[in-house]
Amino acid sequence: RINSDRLWDSIMEMAKIGPGIAGGNNRQTVTDEDGEGRHLFKRWCDAAGLEMGVDEMGTMFARREGTDPSLPPVYVGSHLDTQPTGGKYDGVLGVLGGLEVVRSLNDLGIKTKHPIVVTNWTNEEGARFAPAMMASGVFAGVLDQADVYGHTDKQGKKFGEELERIGWKGSEKVGDRKIHAFFELHIEQGPILEDEGIDIGVVTHGQGLKWLQVTLTGKEAHTGSTPMPKRRNAGLGMARVIELVHEIAMDYQPDAVGAVGHMEVYPNSRNIIAGRTVFTIDIRSPEKEVLDAMDGRIREGIDTICEALDIQYEIEQVGAFNPVTFDAGCVKAIRDAAERLGYSHRNIVSGAGHDACWINRVAPTAMVMCPCVDGLSHNEAEDITKEWASAGADVLFHAVVETAVI
Amino acid sequence: RINSDRLWDSIMEMAKIGPGIAGGNNRQTVTDEDGEGRHLFKRWCDAAGLEMGVDEMGTMFARREGTDPSLPPVYVGSHLDTQPTGGKYDGVLGVLGGLEVVRSLNDLGIKTKHPIVVTNWTNEEGARFAPAMMASGVFAGVLDQADVYGHTDKQGKKFGEELERIGWKGSEKVGDRKIHAFFELHIEQGPILEDEGIDIGVVTHGQGLKWLQVTLTGKEAHTGSTPMPKRRNAGLGMARVIELVHEIAMDYQPDAVGAVGHMEVYPNSRNIIAGRTVFTIDIRSPEKEVLDAMDGRIREGIDTICEALDIQYEIEQVGAFNPVTFDAGCVKAIRDAAERLGYSHRNIVSGAGHDACWINRVAPTAMVMCPCVDGLSHNEAEDITKEWASAGADVLFHAVVETAVI
Ligand SMILES: NC(=O)NCCC(=O)O
Ligand SMILES: NC(=O)NCCC(=O)O
Repeated sequence: RINSDRLWDSIMEMAKIGPGIAGGNNRQTVTDEDGEGRHLFKRWCDAAGLEMGVDEMGTMFARREGTDPSLPPVYVGSHLDTQPTGGKYDGVLGVLGGLEVVRSLNDLGIKTKHPIVVTNWTNEEGARFAPAMMASGVFAGVLDQADVYGHTDKQGKKFGEELERIGWKGSEKVGDRKIHAFFELHIEQGPILEDEGIDIGVVTHGQGLKWLQVTLTGKEAHTGSTPMPKRRNAGLGMARVIELVHEIAMDYQPDAVGAVGHMEVYPNSRNIIAGRTVFTIDIRSPEKEVLDAMDGRIREGIDTICEALDIQYEIEQVGAFNPVTFDAGCVKAIRDAAERLGYSHRNIVSGAGHDACWINRVAPTAMVMCPCVDGLSHNEAEDITKEWASAGADVLFHAVVETAVI
Repeated sequence: RINSDRLWDSIMEMAKIGPGIAGGNNRQTVTDEDGEGRHLFKRWCDAAGLEMGVDEMGTMFARREGTDPSLPPVYVGSHLDTQPTGGKYDGVLGVLGGLEVVRSLNDLGIKTKHPIVVTNWTNEEGARFAPAMMASGVFAGVLDQADVYGHTDKQGKKFGEELERIGWKGSEKVGDRKIHAFFELHIEQGPILEDEGIDIGVVTHGQGLKWLQVTLTGKEAHTGSTPMPKRRNAGLGMARVIELVHEIAMDYQPDAVGAVGHMEVYPNSRNIIAGRTVFTIDIRSPEKEVLDAMDGRIREGIDTICEALDIQYEIEQVGAFNPVTFDAGCVKAIRDAAERLGYSHRNIVSGAGHDACWINRVAPTAMVMCPCVDGLSHNEAEDITKEWASAGADVLFHAVVETAVI
């Protein structure tokens, strides 16, 4: 079993970097705080005798040599970046859980045949720069590096330039590494495990996602003196699309979810009818057909809404991944580990996207989940218990060691 | 008649200060640009031999002495501040039209019995700091000076501190001046005069307004892994309130209008269900009963919407004025002037709020309107012709001189 005190202390230490305003974290990708978090992680890796590699997307790879260095490594990790109002565990548990795996191997003097690489993927959250799981997406060859370098945040800053600015743009070409298997530990971010009192989620599938960024263009005009029939209100258009997305998601739930969390209004003045709105629709489903059907209905609905309001629209897909089926062998390694360790477990579908979803396309991959309080995540109040964390890390430990072979 | 070239040139000169991005202006109240605009106006007033007074709200009063200085002055003016994406004429025409009145009197060597005071009221737009018509509201005793000093912009800066910072907080107590009459020239900001091909709007009434700032509090949560029935979505709540306001306004139009132009979303991340939204409802009607009925239906509707979504709400009234009936004598002076000058004219209700609406409570007041292209205002593309501007200023000139008595 892993050292649960050390794991917990490390999580609490990391949480001091980029503190939020309500007990959580604001350590968004490629900010100064992200840089600081990376330095702390590197110091820990150095102390554990790991060798650090950094690729051109800033992803960190901390290697523990295997007895046969020619074998492809087993990878384990997640991400250290957070939402602007994120929790202390989302991503961090998976990276530091991976670190705890090698620390425990060091403690026990165990050598594995395959090397083990603890990984911190850059920009998993997609909060500051769309899309989410950016670096793992480039690694898996589904996103284009030059393209995502040019993606901008709300201030117009470019991802590539910010990565360079914080000093974490490495020289290693992205995606060149051979991966024997990849394991990611993550909090569930949903309520199922806690509700059912189960220790471990064996993640068999991941939901697919689409992010549709919509721009509506109406006409700025005075809220007082412009007659109702003359208005071309891009704010009202946005409101109708938000309702539309909700209704469509309700039609397909529990096999789908949908919401709009990101909205911008121009010029955003109390007495000006919005001339332009920009917002992102987030729809998800474990069924590709459902996702496509929702996408189609949303596009049709936007067309109808905009025609009625005499406004123009543009729809840009700024993120997407298909539903994922994780590797049967890796999933079995996780289930067997939970079984062996005596933890209660069940199969589960990940509601959120994860780096594992992309890496699954290029290497055998699976995920372990632990419960989180009230299913709450992407909230500073996100919480887990030390016991949940260590059960998850124990399972990760066993699955990784089993796969890396003693 | 006034000198229409000089009036037009002055308007174009003022428009160079705080240029917008699309041909209009961004010269919001108590910004550096506002300060620069004030200095230019003061230089013009000095050149015209006027004596400048500035009150504690920063309102500028440029006085042309009368032959009987003991008589209360006739006031004429409007505002130089603009929306963030405002036009070149909204407010500016009224201030520089007032300046043109005294410049023309100077040219003609005419002396009036009553002094004439050209006025630039601070923060008419209410874009940066709510409410609109702030300084004239304090002058009329309906707003509290200490209170509005503490109002903050989106950056948290206080109105009073910003007024001091730009150096235009005067020493004169607000509201102490005796006003014989007040005249304000303004663009219509609506389509009626242009549609009917009429030169002059004789403003008999002004719509009443309410600004209701609504804060909805739900719960931040993951857009992917939070089941639909568990969501407490403050963004969806906002969307429903926007639709509600629109529907209620449609029920009462053409006797009412309503919209939401200002919206803020927290934390505003693509994959976080909004935990909090803040937005301002703008409803208006020339009938007090209609305004009150709309207010009641909106509050009821918000309650129902929030109950269904399990979110909390707070409603704060951040601006309000009752419908206005302008002074019969002043209105007649404007109508007579238009008639005498041979301009086509009609009675009109102001859809927007104006400083004249507040000053009407403490002194005989009326307004002159000229058409604007396509009824468009609060848009950088706001436009008028030189002929419309000079017709309005001619009528203003005659009404003011008639009232100030030669
Ligand atoms: N796990 C997680 O929160 N990932 C962010 C990407 C997503 O929105 O699913
Ligand atoms: N005239 C004008 O645009 N005033 C601003 C206050 C309002 O919204 O009516």
